[in-house]
Amino acid sequence: MLPHDVLSQVQAELLDFRGSSMSVMEMSHRGPEFEQILAEAVADLRLLVGIPSNYKILFLQGGGYGQFAGVPLNLLGAGQTADYVVSGGWSQAAAMEARRYGSVHIAATTESTQFTQIPAAQNWAFSPAPAYVYVCSNETVFGNEMHTLPMAQNLPAPLVCDASSHFLSRPIDITQYGVMIAGAQKNVGPAGVTIVIVRDDLLDRAQIACPTVMHYQTMAQHNSMLNTPPCFSIYVVGLVLKHLLTHGGLAAAQIRNVEKSRWLYDALDASSRFSCPVRKQDRSRMNVVFTSGDAVVDAAFLAFAEARGLKQLKGHRSVGGLRASLYNAMPMAGAAALVEAIAEFERII
Amino acid sequence: MLPHDVLSQVQAELLDFRGSSMSVMEMSHRGPEFEQILAEAVADLRLLVGIPSNYKILFLQGGGYGQFAGVPLNLLGAGQTADYVVSGGWSQAAAMEARRYGSVHIAATTESTQFTQIPAAQNWAFSPAPAYVYVCSNETVFGNEMHTLPMAQNLPAPLVCDASSHFLSRPIDITQYGVMIAGAQKNVGPAGVTIVIVRDDLLDRAQIACPTVMHYQTMAQHNSMLNTPPCFSIYVVGLVLKHLLTHGGLAAAQIRNVEKSRWLYDALDASSRFSCPVRKQDRSRMNVVFTSGDAVVDAAFLAFAEARGLKQLKGHRSVGGLRASLYNAMPMAGAAALVEAIAEFERII
Repeated sequence: MLPHDVLSQVQAELLDFRGSSMSVMEMSHRGPEFEQILAEAVADLRLLVGIPSNYKILFLQGGGYGQFAGVPLNLLGAGQTADYVVSGGWSQAAAMEARRYGSVHIAATTESTQFTQIPAAQNWAFSPAPAYVYVCSNETVFGNEMHTLPMAQNLPAPLVCDASSHFLSRPIDITQYGVMIAGAQKNVGPAGVTIVIVRDDLLDRAQIACPTVMHYQTMAQHNSMLNTPPCFSIYVVGLVLKHLLTHGGLAAAQIRNVEKSRWLYDALDASSRFSCPVRKQDRSRMNVVFTSGDAVVDAAFLAFAEARGLKQLKGHRSVGGLRASLYNAMPMAGAAALVEAIAEFERII
Repeated sequence: MLPHDVLSQVQAELLDFRGSSMSVMEMSHRGPEFEQILAEAVADLRLLVGIPSNYKILFLQGGGYGQFAGVPLNLLGAGQTADYVVSGGWSQAAAMEARRYGSVHIAATTESTQFTQIPAAQNWAFSPAPAYVYVCSNETVFGNEMHTLPMAQNLPAPLVCDASSHFLSRPIDITQYGVMIAGAQKNVGPAGVTIVIVRDDLLDRAQIACPTVMHYQTMAQHNSMLNTPPCFSIYVVGLVLKHLLTHGGLAAAQIRNVEKSRWLYDALDASSRFSCPVRKQDRSRMNVVFTSGDAVVDAAFLAFAEARGLKQLKGHRSVGGLRASLYNAMPMAGAAALVEAIAEFERII
């Protein structure tokens, strides 16, 4: 979901962007209109998150999956090992992709729990001198989220974090990270743009095989405009950033997200039909997975909810069950409607 | 530029796509609405171009520049050489990028003419057994276009063509190509989606180092949905394809493009102030480069044209001068207005 006022503004400006007589979809990315859109998006993201000047902000293409290759291609030197903490399917896929480019060590995994838990930080077992430590801080499919992360000083290497699915849902202390990657399509904008925040000292470690469009240093030198960037997606991201800035920033977003997800988790914990398999302290505020344990009942609830206008509640095809996504733009009323639907469903079946 | 009726439809559907109560920017790419958008775009492109079933159509990210790496990563085997025909800056950049992944042979180049000519096909000097022969069939910066290409039977390897900047401006006999790549942002839609058309026998030759998001075979197996595709860009591409289908297809597009560009080239050839440096038979119908030979006069014309509402006429920053882009959606009246501006400018200075 995107905020309604953002979509309304996109609609109003679609044929004529602020008197330019062009749509953003038609602009040259080298023209003054788009250059300003990009500059404002970078400045607003810097302000919103509090990103110091020794971090570069890149707008790339290829999604989180593209960065599964982009991270090792940029950071994994010859003969080095990268350490991966596996807390779900996305970190697992990232580790698998990294093996194309060098040695990978699994520092911890909770696969044996079916990712109903995050690997506890005190049990992460690092390789002797890793190039980086990789985590996915919110796993959409399994509905877990890292609510605390080790401080940088307690890690043997820079922390690389795929924060795609909860980026801008809570405050971020970016100084604890070497690289943060975030596909925009959850909280930040439409699919098609990937935000990469890189600390300066990590910009220039890329392998020869790194495609230029993935090369952090080169893209930073070209201000994300080596080639045509995904202009329209960046424009919408910019509007979402301004929306967040005028709605209390990330602290306020976190308060709303804590409250929305608590309603739903409380309802599930009180439910006689449904439950959430994820350990309480590791539950995601973005992706609430739940199930009755019976595929027929789950399917019945899906249909019941759809009839009430509650869409996109199907669990990921790889795990089944049900899943509610409570991204930033989901209003409180949306979560409340789902809580009500669960209660009503329980009454009638 | 995009067709006005396409932009109007995007605007009308922006908040509620055909009764779904969702914007296309908000849809799950696994939902039925987007699956239909993607399926229609593939089917319409197949119909419009006439793409037989032994070619796959992929919607990727990363632009043409991404494919400068994607092509050798997918097609250049260990110990093999790739042959590049260099007719401008884009083919030159593609050849440079390919060197990361193997041996590159320059089969021909017209750099010594400052790319005012296309290398004549009879002079292309191939390596003994190239993996592929690479061309960029329209060079935007230098304003040249390949109006004829050698038949596949006369080439030592599959032809790989970057057709980004004139894709869908004229009929295409895709059976003469092994791979055609096209960033959408010129004739086909907004920036952020790259169309790749691959013959089946070339799908599965990728190097280990090929990132999964660039891997033709994998992306074909996942119907371009291994990860979240650039949904909104694909949706707009789909509307442009339907627009072209209902406006006479590629044959009619070619007739319009021939006529539009002829007006302008005739005016330049008759001009006492301006001229086009490109050899007549190699001139691009999409990108008309011209100059007075005097940077002050060029700048004066730029300002004069802007005041008449004729924008984006600045030559590429690497070569200077002037450039008019006459992509599909530029109406005849746009070209006529430019011809008139040239005549009027000559009268007053």
